Amino acid sequence: MSDVVENIGPIGELTKGLPPSSPSIDIAAVAGKGWNLLRGDLPMPVAVLRQSALERNEAWMSAFRERSGILMAPHGKTTMSPQLFARQLKAGCWAMTVGTVHQLRVCRSFGLKRIVLANQLIGRAEIDYVFSELGRDRDFEFYCLVDSVAGVELLSDGARRNSPGRPLNVLVEGGIAGGRTGCRTVEEAVEVAQAVHASSPRLALRGVEGFEGLDTTASDEAIADFIGHLVQIAEACDGKNLFSDDGPVLLSAGGSAYFDIVVDVFSRARLSRPTQIVTRSGCYITMDSAMYVRAFERLFGRSPELGDLGPSPEAAIEIWAYVQSRPESAKVILTMGKRDASHDVDLPVPLSWFRPGSDGEPQPIPPGHLVTGLNDQHTHMTVPADSPLRVGDMVAFGISHPCTTFDKWEIFYVIDDRYNVVDVLKTYF
Amino acid sequence: MSDVVENIGPIGELTKGLPPSSPSIDIAAVAGKGWNLLRGDLPMPVAVLRQSALERNEAWMSAFRERSGILMAPHGKTTMSPQLFARQLKAGCWAMTVGTVHQLRVCRSFGLKRIVLANQLIGRAEIDYVFSELGRDRDFEFYCLVDSVAGVELLSDGARRNSPGRPLNVLVEGGIAGGRTGCRTVEEAVEVAQAVHASSPRLALRGVEGFEGLDTTASDEAIADFIGHLVQIAEACDGKNLFSDDGPVLLSAGGSAYFDIVVDVFSRARLSRPTQIVTRSGCYITMDSAMYVRAFERLFGRSPELGDLGPSPEAAIEIWAYVQSRPESAKVILTMGKRDASHDVDLPVPLSWFRPGSDGEPQPIPPGHLVTGLNDQHTHMTVPADSPLRVGDMVAFGISHPCTTFDKWEIFYVIDDRYNVVDVLKTYF
Repeated sequence: MSDVVENIGPIGELTKGLPPSSPSIDIAAVAGKGWNLLRGDLPMPVAVLRQSALERNEAWMSAFRERSGILMAPHGKTTMSPQLFARQLKAGCWAMTVGTVHQLRVCRSFGLKRIVLANQLIGRAEIDYVFSELGRDRDFEFYCLVDSVAGVELLSDGARRNSPGRPLNVLVEGGIAGGRTGCRTVEEAVEVAQAVHASSPRLALRGVEGFEGLDTTASDEAIADFIGHLVQIAEACDGKNLFSDDGPVLLSAGGSAYFDIVVDVFSRARLSRPTQIVTRSGCYITMDSAMYVRAFERLFGRSPELGDLGPSPEAAIEIWAYVQSRPESAKVILTMGKRDASHDVDLPVPLSWFRPGSDGEPQPIPPGHLVTGLNDQHTHMTVPADSPLRVGDMVAFGISHPCTTFDKWEIFYVIDDRYNVVDVLKTYF
Repeated sequence: MSDVVENIGPIGELTKGLPPSSPSIDIAAVAGKGWNLLRGDLPMPVAVLRQSALERNEAWMSAFRERSGILMAPHGKTTMSPQLFARQLKAGCWAMTVGTVHQLRVCRSFGLKRIVLANQLIGRAEIDYVFSELGRDRDFEFYCLVDSVAGVELLSDGARRNSPGRPLNVLVEGGIAGGRTGCRTVEEAVEVAQAVHASSPRLALRGVEGFEGLDTTASDEAIADFIGHLVQIAEACDGKNLFSDDGPVLLSAGGSAYFDIVVDVFSRARLSRPTQIVTRSGCYITMDSAMYVRAFERLFGRSPELGDLGPSPEAAIEIWAYVQSRPESAKVILTMGKRDASHDVDLPVPLSWFRPGSDGEPQPIPPGHLVTGLNDQHTHMTVPADSPLRVGDMVAFGISHPCTTFDKWEIFYVIDDRYNVVDVLKTYF
């Protein structure tokens, strides 16, 4: 990966989150500004990541990866921050995963060499771009998914049109009835795999893929059954000798909620050739304050041995806002809205508060404070009549589902435990 | 307003929506590229605005404005597109409205002179920025809201700290029980207005403001009652001579759903000095395919005379995506997700489809196609078993609530009725 910060260039002066009087600024210069969130140096709303949590979370996942002997291709769609990608690769991750060709392009522009598009590759301009990159850079190692013969034909046509000089690596995707993409039956998957095989040497079948995390109400048994379905697909394709000889058969699944089950079940696959498990959690690095708190409680409940891996992942993300109005004694309105914080799984969770100009540190939010709704630029919060909050106070919120908060910010400040700004991350959505 | 396109600078090569093989490109050069959406020149998902609809909608609102003798300060938060702001001001709008200081800064950087912050102004850095702009540029005409004595004190302190040499214009905000910001009673509003008056010459009370559009299930009578509440506040403040002498008393309300009622009720205000109505619709210029279709049906139902103003506003926004999978005969998955289209009011609405490489134009989506959910990067759509859609087809979606689609895109292509790209708009969220 090339020098990330140098490639990003300055943060434009019209970027949301930059102090209103700041000119455009180089990323490397931000740490030296001496900005402190509690001092009011940053505008609000503002998005911050706690450095101590980022480090803790990366260490935990590295320990998991090493103990289980898997490779990891963290999903870059979550943060779309090349600076975090660099951190993840440096920590030992094997590749980055992306969900779209736009995300792929961002990774390529920062020099990433090994990328999994955990999605179908569709569209003439998109397919031509991938083949052009494959032809241009022999070190580019790329994988994408197929789940239909029609999709295989689009890719095969693209290979004919572009002649990249080497095959496009694909994984056949298994899915579940009522779910998203992916072949519902082993037979359908084998049919797709045969179409890939017949497209050799334009395409190469390199493994089997699935995403188990769509239904957060699914039982652990249902998740294990689904991974078992992927294993059956792999074994069937292996039995028909459909996999390419280029390397081990990749078995890939694993969002941020069930990766322990994924590793467990994939480990039981018995193929005639070597296999390699690749998990793809995107949210472990920042965690959140609701959805993944629940997911990790479940994970530690069913896999208590993971408690030995070190301090467990915790929320790195906070969005801070000002109290702008307390129009009723039981109601507070804050300067944060739908455009600043996730609202697709749970509403933001108030964590702590601080009165500008006061000494000390933020205080935990007392019981009884509850976000009841968001407008585009406002938060509605119900508070007890004796809530200490008044106009001008600062409130920190945790969020639920990192992906849909990250995409609302071009910059995230990295802060130390005293709310000093020590770095800034640029995102590319 | 300065030359907008020149000030925007090139569209970066990593911008979502730019063709994957395109380098960074100047806005002025986009029209000359000969890109056509149906030909597959653009990646998908992609966001487009129909030029004919933009023109039609601006003409309709201009006719409304002229007939009713009001001033208009369209809410810029909807599109955050300085190119659209320039179009709105050129069409005769009086000012732009913003919701945050970040949005204010974007407007200022493009040279906008008259701006309404339809929100409380909170935060040391934010308040100092506004006073610095007031001191720096005598032609900058600015208004913001107050709804508490505490808020008045924060602004008054800011004026003392910054000495801009002229007063900060404020409007006292009226609200409704259970609603958002704004004084719930006339008495509270008068108390706030008195605090503003007592802060003269640092602050100047220039009018009364409210937002009536929060509850889309409210009856027309409830909306009229709320505007009546704002009139009562204005009359009470006038009776106590709290308004500044600097100009007419501004009476401002009006989102995109009830502006006819706003004008009606405000017109009946009887003050001792001149008044001026200012409405602030943000969504009229692009409309949508659900929420504002319903709002305008209600509007034309209660104010049929508005049918004479010319062709009525229609949806300009379309998001196009590829069919990437049809894993079950009744289910289609497309390359558009939560990060590309509004999902806070209604899910996207399929409008038409097109098979790349075929002749002719997009066909209307047959009955029975229904979006059932969005993931971060995917759309789930239920389709009839005989749906013509197959992998690789293009589908156009309308959206509900323009604000939460605009903020998901840095660029919107402007297209003619044959889907040729004739312009591109840059947004600043």
